[in-house]
This record gives sequence, C-alpha cells and structure tokens, in this order.
Amino acid sequence: MNAVIPTAGGGPEVLDLRQVNVSTPQAGEVLIRVAFAGINRHDVGQRKRGHPPAGATPILGLEVAGEVVAIGPGVAQDLLGRRVCALVNGGGYADYCLAEAALCLDVPAGMPLEHAAAVPEGLFTFWFNVVTLGGLTAGKWLLVHGGSSGVGSLGIQVAKWLGARVITTSGTEEKCRACLALGADHALNYRTADFEAEAMKFTDGRGVDVILDMVGGLYAQKNVDTLAMDGHLVHLTHANGPEFKVALSSIIRKRAVVTGSLMRGLESDKKHALARELRESVWPDVAGRIKPLVHSVYPLAEVRAAHALMDSGEQSGKVLLRP
Amino acid sequence: MNAVIPTAGGGPEVLDLRQVNVSTPQAGEVLIRVAFAGINRHDVGQRKRGHPPAGATPILGLEVAGEVVAIGPGVAQDLLGRRVCALVNGGGYADYCLAEAALCLDVPAGMPLEHAAAVPEGLFTFWFNVVTLGGLTAGKWLLVHGGSSGVGSLGIQVAKWLGARVITTSGTEEKCRACLALGADHALNYRTADFEAEAMKFTDGRGVDVILDMVGGLYAQKNVDTLAMDGHLVHLTHANGPEFKVALSSIIRKRAVVTGSLMRGLESDKKHALARELRESVWPDVAGRIKPLVHSVYPLAEVRAAHALMDSGEQSGKVLLRP
Repeated sequence: MNAVIPTAGGGPEVLDLRQVNVSTPQAGEVLIRVAFAGINRHDVGQRKRGHPPAGATPILGLEVAGEVVAIGPGVAQDLLGRRVCALVNGGGYADYCLAEAALCLDVPAGMPLEHAAAVPEGLFTFWFNVVTLGGLTAGKWLLVHGGSSGVGSLGIQVAKWLGARVITTSGTEEKCRACLALGADHALNYRTADFEAEAMKFTDGRGVDVILDMVGGLYAQKNVDTLAMDGHLVHLTHANGPEFKVALSSIIRKRAVVTGSLMRGLESDKKHALARELRESVWPDVAGRIKPLVHSVYPLAEVRAAHALMDSGEQSGKVLLRP
Repeated sequence: MNAVIPTAGGGPEVLDLRQVNVSTPQAGEVLIRVAFAGINRHDVGQRKRGHPPAGATPILGLEVAGEVVAIGPGVAQDLLGRRVCALVNGGGYADYCLAEAALCLDVPAGMPLEHAAAVPEGLFTFWFNVVTLGGLTAGKWLLVHGGSSGVGSLGIQVAKWLGARVITTSGTEEKCRACLALGADHALNYRTADFEAEAMKFTDGRGVDVILDMVGGLYAQKNVDTLAMDGHLVHLTHANGPEFKVALSSIIRKRAVVTGSLMRGLESDKKHALARELRESVWPDVAGRIKPLVHSVYPLAEVRAAHALMDSGEQSGKVLLRP
C-alpha cells in the first residue's frame, strides 16, 4: 500500500509516498481502508523531527475515516464493513491504517467520511481538555483561542451541545464569521479586540469558566485575568510562548487551575475511557450534524503541498488527505 | 470584653487590647468563650494593612477553641455548653467570639482546648487544598513545603490518616525531626538537600502526586519538575516569589495542575461543605489524637510579643493567645 514516511527530519520535501506492506490487525485492532486522513499540527512536528515517538509506526497521521476491512482477535464481528472514524497512534497517511477498536466511532449514514476524518483528534482533544480537565458544563462560559482551528471549530459545536456559552478569538473577520456560523455566542478578532475586556463585558465582570489555549505563554497573565473564580486555563501547545509567567497571587486569589495536555501522550486506558464517554454522551447526538471546518483535501500523493499549507498557517479548519 | 484591634497598619506596636461590647449571636451563629485563639500568617497581613476584608470585624483572629455560651436563632440547643473549635471570619483575639455553628467542630473530652485552637485554620486549609483541590488519596505521594508550619504539621497527620505517603521540607534538622515524629515518611532539610532529586529517589523516578507550597514562586519550575504525571501543585501564598514562571511544556507534558487558594476568601457555602466533609471523614477519627505543633502560648495582653515572634519567623508550629 501507499504510505507517507518522512525520509529525514525537515520541511515538506522529506515527505514521500512509499510502498509498504499492509499490517494485520492484532488483538483489539481493526484495519481501516482509509477514505480520508486528517492532518494535525503534531504531524508537522513529527515531520520536523523525522521520527515517531517510541513504539509508534513511522507513518504519519493521527486520525482517519473509512471502512473496517479486517478485524483482529477479540473484536466484535459486526465492526466488519462499518464506516468509522478513529484516533490512531500514527499510520493515518496511508491506504490502510490499523486502529484500536476501542478508539473507533461509528459514522452515521448521513455523515460524509470527509467530515468524519476531521473529527477524532479535535473531538478527543476538546472533550478531554475542556470537559474532563476543564470541567465545562451547561451554563458555563468557554473562551476558545483559535476558534476556527480544527479543535476550535469542533469545540464550538460540542460546547453549544453541552449548553455552554462560547467566546472565540481568531485573526480575521472571515474566521470570526465562521465561528459565529458554527454557533459561537461571540467571536473576537484578536488583532482589533481586547479579549479580556470583551469577555468581562459579556460575562458581566465575572470572567469565563474555561479557556482553551492554542497559543502558548503569550497570553498567560491575560488568560488568568480573564478567568472567573475557580476558572480553568487549559493549554494545548507552547508554540507561541514557551514560558508561562504570571503573578502567583492572581492564581491563588481566583483559585485558578492552570493545566494542559497532549492527546498523543495520553495513556491507553485514559484514551479508552474517553472514547467510551464520547460514545455514551455527545457522539450519538452530534455525529449526524457536526460540521468540521474542512479547508481543503489533497490526494495522498500531494502530501508535500498539504504540509506546505500547514506550514504557512493560512488554512482555516482542517486539511485532509485522500489516499 | 477584651479584644485586639489594630489601631493602624504597621508592626506589632499597632496591636492594643481594647474594651468592646460582646456581640449577640445572629441566625446560625454561636458565641464562644475563647479559651485559646490561634495566630495565623493572615493576621499579620491584616495587621500590616490595618483593616479587615470588607464586611468582617476589625478584631483579629481566624480560629478559636472554647465553650459555646450562647446560640442564635436556628442553632441546635445542644450546642450550648459544648467544647468546640471553629474557623471564624475574624474576631478570635478576644474574650468572646462569634462563630457560624456550621463551622464549629466538636472537641472530644480528651483533647486539650490548647490543641483544638491550633486546628481549624490548618485543617480546613490542608483539606481544601490538598484533598479537594489536590486530589490526595491513599497510596499517593504528598510533598509539603514547610512541614513544621501550622498547616504542615497538621497536614502530615491528616495525610497519613488518609493513607498517603508524605515528604516534607523545612529549614532545620530539628524541624525535620519534628516532621518525622508527626509521621512524615521523609523529612528534608532544604538548606542541605535537593528536594527534587530526593523526591524522585523516594518515588522511583515517578514524582509526587501533590505538592503543598507555602513558599511562592521561588520553587515554581522545581516544583513542576518534581510532580508525577497528573500531579497537582497547590499554593497557599506568594510571599516568597510573587512570580510563577515555568516552561509551559513542562505543564502540558505532565498534565500538571497548578492552582492555589486563600481559605479566608472561600465562599460561605464552600466553607460549610468543607466543614461537613471534615465532620464526616477525618475529624471523628483524629480529633482525639491529632497533635498540632504548638510553639508557644501568650496571654492576650501580650499579643505584641506574639506577633513579634510571628514576624521573626523563628517559631516552629502554632503560636496561640490565651484571653
């Protein structure tokens, strides 16, 4: 089968289509014929490093959608032939991809696989960080930095499904309109608006309960100052601002909770629990109508162009590959 | 009655014994004839500022032990005459002190009131920060900076009651011995030992699950680096190091939770819930045998000397006042 493996660490030019053997699913695993694979920021990091985390396949790609064409021992027969999307530990940029059955979500008939492939990484990431770690529930206020990103755009819809109120920031008026169209209550252009002042206005001076940060330390103090009492500030990356520096008194006074996580680093049992929670709560309800922002779809053979777009940062929403 | 009210903001010399009227307990309140009142770091701050937080009595003192001599409407009759200790919103440095019945803990016959008065602030603070916010449970590792402080010394005993394992730091060999005598598994002298390296040894490289910090930003990065995965770093003060500055990647990689709180700022309903939890869990078990470190007891009239000692930082354990 075709698969994308970096030949070394570097720019998009290290990405090549190679011929490799299709793997056989082991206990608990399924083999998915990939219809679409999502590209994530993490893939770009792995490309730059040139090697996967210990124990993972060198094939890039953390999420796919497609049809289950083979199952390993211990997997329910009725998964065979099903349309699923899955969070995978690498291997997505390929014709076929192994996935844990426990990390597959059913794709309902009405949902295009192109949408489904844009879901797993964003949905798992959003739910774990904002609901599990951040404690978002109905009636609470969420501020999402990067509302038009993959995780942000899914997150808006999931948060609204939860009954939360959502403020987003992004860098253009067009992205702000996209966030509002997805259901955000307020969308702020961070180039022209002061998110702290605006969020305080929207919440009558109370502040927001959860902030999902995809920026890094850059906003550290401003984020803490925008939190309500007992608010949670959850970080997905330290890309823009490797240092987190705030007045400790501002954390203590608000009982602010500052945390973060990496989905790929999450232990297997925690990922399984998370998938179960998604299957038992939001997924059955939203699967048919969730609309990931898909920016563009590239044939697998044009993976270099797709990564060049990721490097440019000009996409709004998900970039997909089609084997 | 006699009561201590700062005449202005300043040093111990602003503290004077004044004659004021005894208050009448309102709905839900009791009046306690104070046998002993605990001195807390917070009282020193209030003395320096010269005024209480909005809505609170100007009389200093956040914890007392004594006998209930009057009750307000809605309070169970059988509280009258009972020996209790209580967390109070100011008013402790006096012959009589109002307390919410909901924030009183029974003092069993065998427990000296002198010990009981040294309990409320430390017990409420420890439980809320380390158990409620920090998630300490049996088998987990706790690191307490300032093991021989009021909250630290009680905390060691409560953590051991929970079944947790406890590492403490303090500044002298004598304080370390006191921590070990209270049940700490390991006591480190921070002047000679590297707590990060030692904690990693004790935990086989895993790190500790909860850190209770009474230092401030000084140890910020070292604290985060000493945490286990999903570890909680909880701050009580920013006195030594007003700035919290760490590599954001170290928070994200460990899913570290950085937080803190001020007991006095805790909302009334949360204080009540906390008191209920204490009454239903640890208090009945440990009340009879918990040993607060009491450094010294001063007559109320010698409050200046007691505060001078607090200012020196040379005490190990609690300083009490006796009306």
